[in-house]
Amino acid sequence: MAKNLTKRAEDYSKWYNELVVKADLAENSAVRGCMVIKPYGYAIWEKMQAELDRMFKETGHQNAYFPLFVPKSLFEAEEKNAEGFAKECAVVTHYRLQNDPEHPGKLRVDPKAKLEEELVVRPTSEAVIWNTYKGWIQSYRDLPILINQWANVVRWEMRTRLFLRTAEFLWQEGHTAHATKQEALDEAKQMNQVYADFVQNFMAIPVIQGTKTESERFAGAEETYCIEALMQDGKALQAGTSHFLGQNFAKAFDVKFMTSAGDQDHVWATSWGVSTRLMGALIMTHSDDQGLVLPPNLAPYQVVIVPIYKSEEQLEAISTVAQEIMKTLRSENISVKYDDRTTQRPGAKFAQHELQGVPLRIAIGPKDLEKGTVEVARRDTLSKTTFVLEGLSKEIKNLLSEIQHSLYNKAIDFRNEHITEVDSFDAFKEVLEEKGGFISAHWDGTAETEQKIKDATKATIRCIPYDTPEESGVCVFSGAPSKGRVLFAKAY
Amino acid sequence: MAKNLTKRAEDYSKWYNELVVKADLAENSAVRGCMVIKPYGYAIWEKMQAELDRMFKETGHQNAYFPLFVPKSLFEAEEKNAEGFAKECAVVTHYRLQNDPEHPGKLRVDPKAKLEEELVVRPTSEAVIWNTYKGWIQSYRDLPILINQWANVVRWEMRTRLFLRTAEFLWQEGHTAHATKQEALDEAKQMNQVYADFVQNFMAIPVIQGTKTESERFAGAEETYCIEALMQDGKALQAGTSHFLGQNFAKAFDVKFMTSAGDQDHVWATSWGVSTRLMGALIMTHSDDQGLVLPPNLAPYQVVIVPIYKSEEQLEAISTVAQEIMKTLRSENISVKYDDRTTQRPGAKFAQHELQGVPLRIAIGPKDLEKGTVEVARRDTLSKTTFVLEGLSKEIKNLLSEIQHSLYNKAIDFRNEHITEVDSFDAFKEVLEEKGGFISAHWDGTAETEQKIKDATKATIRCIPYDTPEESGVCVFSGAPSKGRVLFAKAY
Repeated sequence: MAKNLTKRAEDYSKWYNELVVKADLAENSAVRGCMVIKPYGYAIWEKMQAELDRMFKETGHQNAYFPLFVPKSLFEAEEKNAEGFAKECAVVTHYRLQNDPEHPGKLRVDPKAKLEEELVVRPTSEAVIWNTYKGWIQSYRDLPILINQWANVVRWEMRTRLFLRTAEFLWQEGHTAHATKQEALDEAKQMNQVYADFVQNFMAIPVIQGTKTESERFAGAEETYCIEALMQDGKALQAGTSHFLGQNFAKAFDVKFMTSAGDQDHVWATSWGVSTRLMGALIMTHSDDQGLVLPPNLAPYQVVIVPIYKSEEQLEAISTVAQEIMKTLRSENISVKYDDRTTQRPGAKFAQHELQGVPLRIAIGPKDLEKGTVEVARRDTLSKTTFVLEGLSKEIKNLLSEIQHSLYNKAIDFRNEHITEVDSFDAFKEVLEEKGGFISAHWDGTAETEQKIKDATKATIRCIPYDTPEESGVCVFSGAPSKGRVLFAKAY
Repeated sequence: MAKNLTKRAEDYSKWYNELVVKADLAENSAVRGCMVIKPYGYAIWEKMQAELDRMFKETGHQNAYFPLFVPKSLFEAEEKNAEGFAKECAVVTHYRLQNDPEHPGKLRVDPKAKLEEELVVRPTSEAVIWNTYKGWIQSYRDLPILINQWANVVRWEMRTRLFLRTAEFLWQEGHTAHATKQEALDEAKQMNQVYADFVQNFMAIPVIQGTKTESERFAGAEETYCIEALMQDGKALQAGTSHFLGQNFAKAFDVKFMTSAGDQDHVWATSWGVSTRLMGALIMTHSDDQGLVLPPNLAPYQVVIVPIYKSEEQLEAISTVAQEIMKTLRSENISVKYDDRTTQRPGAKFAQHELQGVPLRIAIGPKDLEKGTVEVARRDTLSKTTFVLEGLSKEIKNLLSEIQHSLYNKAIDFRNEHITEVDSFDAFKEVLEEKGGFISAHWDGTAETEQKIKDATKATIRCIPYDTPEESGVCVFSGAPSKGRVLFAKAY
């Protein structure tokens, strides 16, 4: 199977598109820009959800559910937010179909069933949620509100790609309400840290934490914190954002509260989200020309056992050993699948599990039975080792942990090698074209320069990293003074 | 709080509507017919999801995700299904908003962004899924496909009620594909059994399993299996359905496969679902005039501890004991919350936890400290018992188990008392009006009679129970011969 996979060096973009489909993660649907997430891909997403959900609850958040639709009048209340999303809104205008008198057996929209007010399919839920919070908040005693929602959202993108940019995608969106500015700022930063911890420790993807420039901010936010990852082709990917929304939504929806001092004040807000886009980041960070490579934390099954046999008796004997191994592995919370399909040869099974990124493959043949051994192949290094059955589960456990760490280390080495400091616009363009990755450069702090650099190179400011040292310099583009470097890159 | 709750005997419907809101389960939103599920209500739904998901996976199903939108041409492909849902479809016709030149600061639908083909917001996903399965199925080796989806769906209902009937609701929908008719029938029956086990054992709600009459079937199904529950006001509630879809969708979407014998055949299908409607069933089965009553399996927290104190020292001493109790309970997988809010008096806390149906409340006061005891109150019986600290967690565990069973027994006693056999239409009407519940009566098997009975009494045939004995009789309405009794009731 992997034989038919385009090589990354040949065409990275094609490699990605093929891999998503061949590894059974997702496919395009009959609906323009909307994807079908297949069971194997969805199982990975479920693992992300479970861990994120645990982390959100551990930091005091609760889940809730708000409507899919936003009445147009609510949607437009926060003007910047509305303006930011207006161009990509799917709009429901009618609530009924009827038989088409001109085409028997076909349906048409019933012209009599036109909505008085159009409904926007949520591209994000600030509007509908803040309109709800208005009814929940009277006093400082009602604050903070710390809510998360797992939901689908729709943004009518013109050019779509599986997981990376789809008209409908799945995500979680946190929406919190606070009595003070500081508390809201702390929350937004805390969630940025939760995202960084999750993506780095659980997904083995290194990220840079920082703030967005004004022009890259979420529409309606006063500050956007982000985590930025680097893909193997040298392009950056925004993996998660959390927004300090100030009092913008509270003002738009008139959400005031009585402070502990007895005054009236508008409520302070944050929102934060990650989406199925993380699947794209996962694929593009770790995978190789043989197919998907999955960190053990995210693998639908971490170990697959493949029997190598010629006779029924051999299969039976191998199956007995396999069952024993599975029992021990499962007792150690290691997920394992026994691939005893009779419709496929071992070679085909090997290729499939490689393509689908199963972290460890155990092969058991007749000779192994004699010697009391098994052959263990690592997906990340493609190396094979023979182990004796005695103590196997401990070896497997160690290997899985080693793979998880090794994938992270490999990715962070690559990332660190692809942060390049430049001090001239020529060097900027050269590095961008020839090496790619993040470019650390001085910028004069104006949106005009940012736009001009984007127009000239397609690179955008991915973030102003938290740990940027104060350093006087001159903008690589305008020559105007700068107080510190920011990170540029081409991005997904 | 509960003081303000309408009594069930006064106005059951009003009691329900008030309880959903007062217990913080859900509320109406600004979008007609769409609800906001609040954190406390959503936590209950999450518990249902987790258990159902476990049961689905245990029976070999995998989760996946399919698009929210269904192009009209796909939607209308299976005509009966399309006809059944056409009148309640929300339809997306445009994909962009723009500034309204006549109303600065407002938005309007961009007339230039009209979709070539309208998109239906899924009322159910058979069409979009079978259009996808077409690409997945070539041979009998590709079967069965056993997939479930957790999703939101939209059915534009004219009269809505929180949880029971909302324009948008959350559900799971299973969609399976099989090589043989028997296998599909077995799957549909199996899922009916899974639903019955879940609702009875986990939610403590007794149900009757059976098949629907032709007129009550899912649009596009050849057989619908259902579980029917009985609410305290004597009305039935359909709690879950599973459908044998025959080859209808395979034919509509041209999904054929090569059989093991080498022939071409259309694929056999099932679909099955339960929704947030189960929240309504839960509330109306167990709750009372004091508020919500929750089976321990579904309670967001099973135990709440309330300190009774006058001084700070007392609170500190009580808190030490409470922490110890919580530690022990949690080690036994019992969820517990310590309500040490200083903004509320114990009486208000008691009332709130009663209203929200927390199964057990532990109160600890200064005298308890002296004696080494606590007072434990059961929500279901409202009875109180004093326990010594020694061995408390075992007592709590037993009590929770007792409550779970006792709720089921109470509900099944009520249900069994409300199945009445009648042999005349006068008796039918009398029982329906004065006693309510299920009426077991002979029916001639025709849709005409079914409709006439419905027109005359509002009662419908809820199901033909699996265990109906063959029994000759005459239809209560038409006097025509009947082979067995069916269950009628007014229903939600």
